[in-house]
Amino acid sequence: MDQSDLQAARAWQLSERAIKLTSSAIREILKVTERPEVISFAGGLPSPATFPVEEMRAASDRILRENAAAALQYSATEGYLPLREWVAQRHSVGGVKIRPSQVLITTGSQQALDLLGKVLVSPGSPVLVETPTYLGALQSFSLFEPRYVQVPSDDLGLVPEGLTPELTAGARLLYAIPNFQNPTGRRLPLARREALAAYALRAPFPVIEDDPYGALDYAGQPLPTLLSMAPEHIVHLGSFSKVLAPGLRVGYIVAPEALHFKLVQAKQAADLHTPSFTQRIVHEVVKDGFLDTHVPKIRALYRDQCEAMHTALARYMPEGVSWNRPEGGMFIWVNLPARIDSMKLLDEAIAQNVAFVPGAPFFANEARHNTLRLSFVTVPPEKIDEGIARLGALIRARA
Amino acid sequence: MDQSDLQAARAWQLSERAIKLTSSAIREILKVTERPEVISFAGGLPSPATFPVEEMRAASDRILRENAAAALQYSATEGYLPLREWVAQRHSVGGVKIRPSQVLITTGSQQALDLLGKVLVSPGSPVLVETPTYLGALQSFSLFEPRYVQVPSDDLGLVPEGLTPELTAGARLLYAIPNFQNPTGRRLPLARREALAAYALRAPFPVIEDDPYGALDYAGQPLPTLLSMAPEHIVHLGSFSKVLAPGLRVGYIVAPEALHFKLVQAKQAADLHTPSFTQRIVHEVVKDGFLDTHVPKIRALYRDQCEAMHTALARYMPEGVSWNRPEGGMFIWVNLPARIDSMKLLDEAIAQNVAFVPGAPFFANEARHNTLRLSFVTVPPEKIDEGIARLGALIRARA
Repeated sequence: MDQSDLQAARAWQLSERAIKLTSSAIREILKVTERPEVISFAGGLPSPATFPVEEMRAASDRILRENAAAALQYSATEGYLPLREWVAQRHSVGGVKIRPSQVLITTGSQQALDLLGKVLVSPGSPVLVETPTYLGALQSFSLFEPRYVQVPSDDLGLVPEGLTPELTAGARLLYAIPNFQNPTGRRLPLARREALAAYALRAPFPVIEDDPYGALDYAGQPLPTLLSMAPEHIVHLGSFSKVLAPGLRVGYIVAPEALHFKLVQAKQAADLHTPSFTQRIVHEVVKDGFLDTHVPKIRALYRDQCEAMHTALARYMPEGVSWNRPEGGMFIWVNLPARIDSMKLLDEAIAQNVAFVPGAPFFANEARHNTLRLSFVTVPPEKIDEGIARLGALIRARA
Repeated sequence: MDQSDLQAARAWQLSERAIKLTSSAIREILKVTERPEVISFAGGLPSPATFPVEEMRAASDRILRENAAAALQYSATEGYLPLREWVAQRHSVGGVKIRPSQVLITTGSQQALDLLGKVLVSPGSPVLVETPTYLGALQSFSLFEPRYVQVPSDDLGLVPEGLTPELTAGARLLYAIPNFQNPTGRRLPLARREALAAYALRAPFPVIEDDPYGALDYAGQPLPTLLSMAPEHIVHLGSFSKVLAPGLRVGYIVAPEALHFKLVQAKQAADLHTPSFTQRIVHEVVKDGFLDTHVPKIRALYRDQCEAMHTALARYMPEGVSWNRPEGGMFIWVNLPARIDSMKLLDEAIAQNVAFVPGAPFFANEARHNTLRLSFVTVPPEKIDEGIARLGALIRARA
């Protein structure tokens, strides 16, 4: 591109929202850490060992032999009906009945955040988030220029008593990740779930329950979803990325019909529909109970890797460093001594061929710079030990 | 859902943009016309006879045997690099060199419109469109609350001389479909392309060239793209929906790097990336020149169906009805006598089990209500004759 051409294109006026737009710190870091010599605890990439490749190959083959014309054609914006029925059935537990008409299939759970931002957030709208919260949600919502309000949170998650009238005035939504939260790995206890569901019943805005990790509880003892406690007042986001494979980009939104209808309209404008073929692959793989035997294997793998990281942290971290012991999911959250800025630490870590994600970008407003997120699902145990040893030495040198 | 619950959810405050949001008239019509007894000229569904099922089955199988871990994992927001390289190569014609760094793979071409709206349009921004234009583009851009400005257009397409300083003041983008436009089927002649490309060189905003139908010129004599004439000033949208299969939802944007970079950021927030698996299927199928033999078959099929519709129109339409003879693509545009409102005609037509899309929704502002769009690609020739006969009788009765 010659210089004048480049300037011409650069002179194009962008929207206000685009000017404010930034890349995910995580994805920028991931690019650096793609070098094979780097032990990366940065990415939240599910272990490829858990991908049910043979089942997907059989499913793809069957679909293209038996239903190719439908699987390759345009299809309904709402999603593939048998998959929507499966999702509705999956969430109909206890006395709760979820209807397929509440289910919208999305191009990954990330798209659900974009659609919710589009439909609920106007410039300046207050949006309530945990402290810290999922960076990808902040990115999606930010395009619609909200004013973020951090809800008081502690090691157990969001504190429902913190949802005072002053804090929540004018809010358009509350975004929560009750299970093994990204980035902290924490799980919201039952009593707080009950309090939050009760709050949702009277709140003049939806409570969003983002739940990509719920199936990954190591003890196989899930806590009830908010959806099951207040089915007409919760917007529940689900994903097949962590229990099947993220590369298919299939997720879903369960929402009350009134909101569902608007989300479908927004989805139509966003990508018409999620690929017919990948939706059918997911349905073909899960429809006969495959997850019941598959998910326990993923749990066992991740539990062992979590344990390996825990052991390594206890061995190599100096005093003044603390972390949690997640009961599921993919992440451990680390608190460093207050004077250590994890963003600066990262430069040194990458020089030592070990990577993590600094905690600051996960805070909507005031950040705690002495925090970081470690993912234990991509790196095998022996490498976990080696990587944490390097990281421990770096922190020790600064402590 | 009991009544009080429903009201609670309905009371949630939506964003300004969501309140204005409407469904596509086309998709609402498509639902009605799914009954098998309806002869539908409404949908723009490619003929399933053109889907290369065996090639896709072989490609899926090969990918899941040889590269499953990558095909099922999270991947780069920009898209699968070999596919981006293929696209860049495909558009490097004459002396023009398109770089892979200009290519962003999208979840269908529709997503490109959403991303462009996000990145370029602020509330009240003037957006220039043809008269009429693609309804799906109006839907996507409308979420970002533009002020539409209709560019003078005639039977040959957009009139470049109409782009006066008064008309274009403050515009953020010009959206054009030079090849076999949806809905009119018209193709912009070479001289107008040259004038439009020259205009793009000095315009302070990008000219968007949406080109899903370019490969479907029946004579196999494509006119040069705007991209090839002003490669650093045109944003070109491409799609595999009409030459392979729409159900995979794979499209792309070729843009100058400065804009590409912002589009990638917006895409990251929208769905992280287009499914890795479907991108690889497309690449695997097209990489060795498959389209060179496949596309001529699609052209021949559609040319015959277009001819069948043309013959039927000439046979059954009363005086005062006119239509064009497209040189490619999927649509014929019909002008009725001025007093016939095609929206009202549609009700009668559906009662007679024949369907089309009224023309009015394709106009951004002042609509011509005596127009309609006919698609000839989904219905076989003998049914085309029967459907047009029914439609002709209805119009004759009103004329």
